[in-house]
Amino acid sequence: MDRDLLLKAHSRIAPFVHRTPVIASRAVNALCDAEIVFKCENFQKMGAFKMRGATNAIMQLSDRPKNNGVVTHSSGNFAQALALAARNLGVIAHIVMPHNAPKVKVEAVKGYGGRVVFCGSAIEDRETTTQQVIDKTGATFIHPSDDIDVILGNATAAMELLEDFPDLQYIVAPVGGGGLLAGTALATHFFGNNCKVLGAEPKNVDDAYRSLISGKIEINENTDTIADGLRTHLGNVNFPIIQQFVDSIITVEEPEIKDAMRFIYERMKIVVEPSSAVALAAVIKSKARLKDKKVGIILSGGNVDLSGFALYF
Amino acid sequence: MDRDLLLKAHSRIAPFVHRTPVIASRAVNALCDAEIVFKCENFQKMGAFKMRGATNAIMQLSDRPKNNGVVTHSSGNFAQALALAARNLGVIAHIVMPHNAPKVKVEAVKGYGGRVVFCGSAIEDRETTTQQVIDKTGATFIHPSDDIDVILGNATAAMELLEDFPDLQYIVAPVGGGGLLAGTALATHFFGNNCKVLGAEPKNVDDAYRSLISGKIEINENTDTIADGLRTHLGNVNFPIIQQFVDSIITVEEPEIKDAMRFIYERMKIVVEPSSAVALAAVIKSKARLKDKKVGIILSGGNVDLSGFALYF
Repeated sequence: MDRDLLLKAHSRIAPFVHRTPVIASRAVNALCDAEIVFKCENFQKMGAFKMRGATNAIMQLSDRPKNNGVVTHSSGNFAQALALAARNLGVIAHIVMPHNAPKVKVEAVKGYGGRVVFCGSAIEDRETTTQQVIDKTGATFIHPSDDIDVILGNATAAMELLEDFPDLQYIVAPVGGGGLLAGTALATHFFGNNCKVLGAEPKNVDDAYRSLISGKIEINENTDTIADGLRTHLGNVNFPIIQQFVDSIITVEEPEIKDAMRFIYERMKIVVEPSSAVALAAVIKSKARLKDKKVGIILSGGNVDLSGFALYF
Repeated sequence: MDRDLLLKAHSRIAPFVHRTPVIASRAVNALCDAEIVFKCENFQKMGAFKMRGATNAIMQLSDRPKNNGVVTHSSGNFAQALALAARNLGVIAHIVMPHNAPKVKVEAVKGYGGRVVFCGSAIEDRETTTQQVIDKTGATFIHPSDDIDVILGNATAAMELLEDFPDLQYIVAPVGGGGLLAGTALATHFFGNNCKVLGAEPKNVDDAYRSLISGKIEINENTDTIADGLRTHLGNVNFPIIQQFVDSIITVEEPEIKDAMRFIYERMKIVVEPSSAVALAAVIKSKARLKDKKVGIILSGGNVDLSGFALYF
């Protein structure tokens, strides 16, 4: 692993992803007593940073596997990201989704040209179905977060942020499956200037926090958090990177996540998903530690379920 | 009225307002078959373009009236705008609000340092109460939309937009009280290059549309629209400007407003108030006329009632 791998990933995917804007908010700075900038992956194509990793992973396939397509199992942002990235690159994407996945997510994947394959809702079901797709089509499996090319693609968000703001002292990213946090940590290690990386995680699904303490990958007993993108656990590829390059993980309570999300909507006027609010919540919670520091926050995405916005939709 | 008055208003208020960003969206361009840019007054201080007019109107007072403060009646964005603009300029602002105004709006005005004076909910009540404040304090009344200095301040949003995009062929702004549309029309007349101005109005409160037809200020029989900022009618100062410089007014149905608002949230990932969605709805409705045209949309503000966002808040 070296700088060059990251730089190559960045040039590789650049034509297929947005260089997202970085914004600041006086209201947030006043609230946190720090200088905070936000890398807006909510403005990324398909609405989340996952577009970066998905694009890089497909582009790293050799021609023959590309011809056979790609497959993943996801009902979240990675499903849409792989579908859209594949379409942009002229590749077929099979997306294995549980039959009870929200219709809006299924339609989104189909809208990006993904071929949806339904499976049962148990973990074994999705693995069996994924294997069936592989056997039948020869498609290459791409894991949503535990794949080095996905991680390198995700890393490009923090690379761009550090290019724009080289003197950041902290970068904070949410941690779910670990693909964004590992990428952010690699980018910061190679391109930061004594910059530390903090993970932000809901207390209710604090598997990453516990994994760093125990030294092995921990699992969540329940997945009861509003931050639906962060319910999964770390993997064998990203865990060692997180162990080596992440300073620490801040856990936050559900009300803290909602307060941070409300603050972003009300004061910053941008749409983010709850996972992104987890990162701001962690910064607010770490106010003492981050006082007067220059802090970058990765806003991971903006795909929220607007059907909950009862007054308007 | 000349260019110079507008240029002076712009330099006058520049230190006290944001130069808001202008953004574009491929999704919107594809939907409308046109080249569309958005002037993001939802990112303006206190969340709406009203900050411009309020600031300009206070700054145009001579010293003696300034010392006696300003007063307005509003339960919407102008109440907050006048309160914040006054505080920034070291002036006292009295805000007359109906006693049944939403608590969140009252708190927002107080948060910006405004002195809230409650009145009954009938129009005569607010006028009586406003007069009482004037008699008691000597404060100068500033109308939210029917005041030439408010209109000139509001005009600066379109001036900046035309400075950034001089070759716009259309600018579309929502019309409620008429202060934004009149300002937009003046700015476009003096700084546009054969650019036409369209007003966007909910069909349910189409007083401006009817006023342009009848040649006199029409009133709304009911105010049943989600676009709560657009329920008021035109005034004696702004109506002649709108008559002279606005090309036409497009009216849109409530479902069209909601669809446009949803599109902005889902695809552009920014928070706007329903009044802003009215402008996009009008552009979508005018697709045939605007095909392949360069169009600017004034997103008027981003102050929405998040208590309706049941799933998250």
